[in-house]
Amino acid sequence: MALIVQKYGGTSVDGIEKMRHVAKQVASARHNGDDVVVVLSAMGKETDRLINLATTATPDPSQRELDMLISTGEQVSVSLLAMVLNGQGIKARSFTGGQIGIITDGTHTNARIQRISTERLRESLSRGTVPVVAGFQGMGPESEITTLGRGGSDTTAVALAAALGADICDIYTDVDGIYTTDPGIVPEAKKRLRVSYEEMLEMASLGARVLQSRAVAFAMKYRVPVRVRSSFNTSDEGTWVVCEDLAMEREIISGVTYDKHQARITLVGVPDKPGVASKIFNAVAKEDITVDMIIQNIGRDKATDISFTLPRADAGRAKQAIDRLASETAMGDILLTKDIAKVSIVGIGMRSHSGVAAKMFASLAAEGINIIMISTSEIKISCVIDERYTELAVRVLHKAFGLGKTRKRLKTDKKAHHAPR
Amino acid sequence: MALIVQKYGGTSVDGIEKMRHVAKQVASARHNGDDVVVVLSAMGKETDRLINLATTATPDPSQRELDMLISTGEQVSVSLLAMVLNGQGIKARSFTGGQIGIITDGTHTNARIQRISTERLRESLSRGTVPVVAGFQGMGPESEITTLGRGGSDTTAVALAAALGADICDIYTDVDGIYTTDPGIVPEAKKRLRVSYEEMLEMASLGARVLQSRAVAFAMKYRVPVRVRSSFNTSDEGTWVVCEDLAMEREIISGVTYDKHQARITLVGVPDKPGVASKIFNAVAKEDITVDMIIQNIGRDKATDISFTLPRADAGRAKQAIDRLASETAMGDILLTKDIAKVSIVGIGMRSHSGVAAKMFASLAAEGINIIMISTSEIKISCVIDERYTELAVRVLHKAFGLGKTRKRLKTDKKAHHAPR
Repeated sequence: MALIVQKYGGTSVDGIEKMRHVAKQVASARHNGDDVVVVLSAMGKETDRLINLATTATPDPSQRELDMLISTGEQVSVSLLAMVLNGQGIKARSFTGGQIGIITDGTHTNARIQRISTERLRESLSRGTVPVVAGFQGMGPESEITTLGRGGSDTTAVALAAALGADICDIYTDVDGIYTTDPGIVPEAKKRLRVSYEEMLEMASLGARVLQSRAVAFAMKYRVPVRVRSSFNTSDEGTWVVCEDLAMEREIISGVTYDKHQARITLVGVPDKPGVASKIFNAVAKEDITVDMIIQNIGRDKATDISFTLPRADAGRAKQAIDRLASETAMGDILLTKDIAKVSIVGIGMRSHSGVAAKMFASLAAEGINIIMISTSEIKISCVIDERYTELAVRVLHKAFGLGKTRKRLKTDKKAHHAPR
Repeated sequence: MALIVQKYGGTSVDGIEKMRHVAKQVASARHNGDDVVVVLSAMGKETDRLINLATTATPDPSQRELDMLISTGEQVSVSLLAMVLNGQGIKARSFTGGQIGIITDGTHTNARIQRISTERLRESLSRGTVPVVAGFQGMGPESEITTLGRGGSDTTAVALAAALGADICDIYTDVDGIYTTDPGIVPEAKKRLRVSYEEMLEMASLGARVLQSRAVAFAMKYRVPVRVRSSFNTSDEGTWVVCEDLAMEREIISGVTYDKHQARITLVGVPDKPGVASKIFNAVAKEDITVDMIIQNIGRDKATDISFTLPRADAGRAKQAIDRLASETAMGDILLTKDIAKVSIVGIGMRSHSGVAAKMFASLAAEGINIIMISTSEIKISCVIDERYTELAVRVLHKAFGLGKTRKRLKTDKKAHHAPR
């Protein structure tokens, strides 16, 4: 008798028919004698539909009203699933984030969970009723409705699992696990049985968008065993995201990821004196734009070049902010490049192995791929390259680090070609 | 500087464009220096869409889950209108029923308001912010979401107006006021300037579905001046629903209404002994069916006939319940007639005038319309007739009581032909 938190994403609850499928899985866990807490996202494209209505209402809707609006998406899906479950004779009860006791700060559209009172959850479970909880949302000060930011339903699931001390937090999604790289680019990509929280964090923020970073960080902090698996193929184990000791498969490199949504801004001939860089990045930060890599060359002739990467969608606004700055302070030329991509290798084993970076650079060079920028962390090396070489770079690195070669062909592996990242 | 509660129905907020129109009216009141509280229904057919999803999920969804589901409809419309208002520079803030302090009992889908804490409303108003409140919903025990039953947004508006001591409660709808009868049947029907709460109550429950009965009862109890007006034609005053002293136009008869959604069940040869009628109506009540008129003839040969009317939609279920009963107790023949209608005349003046009933019966008889059943209250007389004579009966009664003859032709009166009841 285990306590399992099951989280289903939008594609898994997109319509009553799909909800019946979800109900079947809940039923099967209940019949095994397990206690189940279900966490849901909004149905399919419902959140997009609501955001669309909001931007029709006004170009710049307030975050507070956005939360009022989009939180209805999850409320609809949980009540409908509770009805489906009840209709099949499984006792269930839906709850909003506020009702179930997910208390957050007041930061609308990106609230942080402050505490969770599990009283109502435990009461529901003790009566043999499946709590069906609206993901992505909580209650801030003054009974305000808050949301947890993109992918926040994962965070809800992991946070509830942590608060309840659940045995497993199952994240059901439209992929069947975490792969060594995008199977769409490298057919030999291997599904991993286990990934450490740390690796998952690096992969999530690098574009392997299976599990939200904050959810992984939460899981890591509270040691919640998370399993990522397909809601359409539950015979497959999926991938466990666990602490390093349990991750076991200590390959040097565990995955190759890429991100095409990148742009680079270069400032040529910036006056080489204190405070200039700070001014530039302040101007960008004021626009709420997150800068990724920053490189400053050694100065010559009392001037220097500064390059940085940022999300491509923010590039135009960032350039405008710097252009405004340049009209006040001499800043040299401002160049915007959009056709770049970031390719990264990730692996816990990297810590104890030298030569990994050298091997990466050599592999890319052998294919004539120029490295524009480099950044490294303890368990990750990223290179910015020309966007058109992205797929080639991913294939080359996947092969160079032997990620596909030990692959065991499982029955379900045929799906790999079709699985999204 | 008045305090006005404005309620807009589903057709008035069906899409962002219509919301901009609502925003204009709110703006105009604000520019007059008035304080405004807005109450909204769900957008257009949204509630129907959600109920449809629910019945797809399970044929008999729990009331509690239904409330979780359909309450999202109003939450969507209030957040969107707040965005539209903010976008036009009018400070506004949306609230759910629970957030604004509408506390109800725990009767899901038909909750009663127990108290309203106006603290948050007043705080919002004092800061010059327009509170935009989700109609139809409240918060029951344990933070449960409840709804107030059909037309509950009217009740929310009147209840908030009562709690705040508002000067006016404007109900914006798709008709431009209360008419002496259906202008679709009688082109000479006259729009009334004032109607008393009592008359409105009789008319609302009789099928003039402009304003929900519970809202009228609430308004009557707390003496809230209610104005029913068209959201598409605000140059028109609409109809005031006020207390009797203010209603002034003390015509003997103020309106003719009809209801075609009626059916009649007759039990022929029921044993004439105590307890039988009680058994019959208990069986029907257990099915949650509201019976309207009941007629029992004088018994002969130790048997009697009992007839009653009820909503046509419930007739099948009621007959089944009685059939089951008849299999246990001898009950005579059970006849179900569906092609009947109820025609009523309503008027405060009826109290002090004799001969009204006689005139009604004579007028119908003169046209060869047979009266099947009769029921009367202090300010209303209803006759059940053959359904096919409904329109004829309405026209005859409207003319007989001189409702159209004093009609002043206003500019806006041309709309009367097209206005729904």
